[in-house]
Amino acid sequence: MTLHKEQFLRDYESLSQVLTDKPLAALGDAYANFAYSMALSRKAGSPRGKKVKGAPLAEAVRRAGLRSYLPSRIDKHVLSDAAEALLVYAWLKDVITLEESVDVLEKNDNLEEGLTELLVRAKGRIKF
Amino acid sequence: MTLHKEQFLRDYESLSQVLTDKPLAALGDAYANFAYSMALSRKAGSPRGKKVKGAPLAEAVRRAGLRSYLPSRIDKHVLSDAAEALLVYAWLKDVITLEESVDVLEKNDNLEEGLTELLVRAKGRIKF
Repeated sequence: MTLHKEQFLRDYESLSQVLTDKPLAALGDAYANFAYSMALSRKAGSPRGKKVKGAPLAEAVRRAGLRSYLPSRIDKHVLSDAAEALLVYAWLKDVITLEESVDVLEKNDNLEEGLTELLVRAKGRIKF
Repeated sequence: MTLHKEQFLRDYESLSQVLTDKPLAALGDAYANFAYSMALSRKAGSPRGKKVKGAPLAEAVRRAGLRSYLPSRIDKHVLSDAAEALLVYAWLKDVITLEESVDVLEKNDNLEEGLTELLVRAKGRIKF
């Protein structure tokens, strides 16, 4: 897909920079909701639209071992933003396709587990 | 993209059926928000996340000449749902790519105009 995805991405020097980028998280919110809605649609066999809430995103950040890349005193909102930022960053950098994101979310019955798996894959494939 | 997009789509017999499918509109809401956020990101040169509100969607349905495919007495919410349903239906049926949706929204300074153009293209390319 020639979506010119990277042209608006600045250079990030570390995973922490990605995880704490609020505008990136805002774009990631839209990405995560769309991928999750597609996963639910495929699982249900008919169209579905649903937002990914903050709690499973925050929990996935912890399970994926990303907590240590964030400042020590943060609220849950920062945790869920971190997940959204990394999910879309991995897509923008072409290390995870939309198809793979939908697949992983579809195959995991539990949303936290699906998100955790995606974050682990993203972290493992991104180089700084 | 082998996203197995169609497997959860039932057969629609008319444009009216697509436009009034609420679950399809719910998925379309996620699609529209993601495409619009990508368009804004490219235009701004940095990540953005923003939801498409109901008013421009409803206005685009009227401008695209789709009003007559809907029941006579409806509220604005049904109009905006109709736009979301058709936008994602065109993508699911592979007549408009995500890339094209982002492109059109990026190139039109006015969101209503961009949405109208997408709806007109969708309507012109879908066969029942």
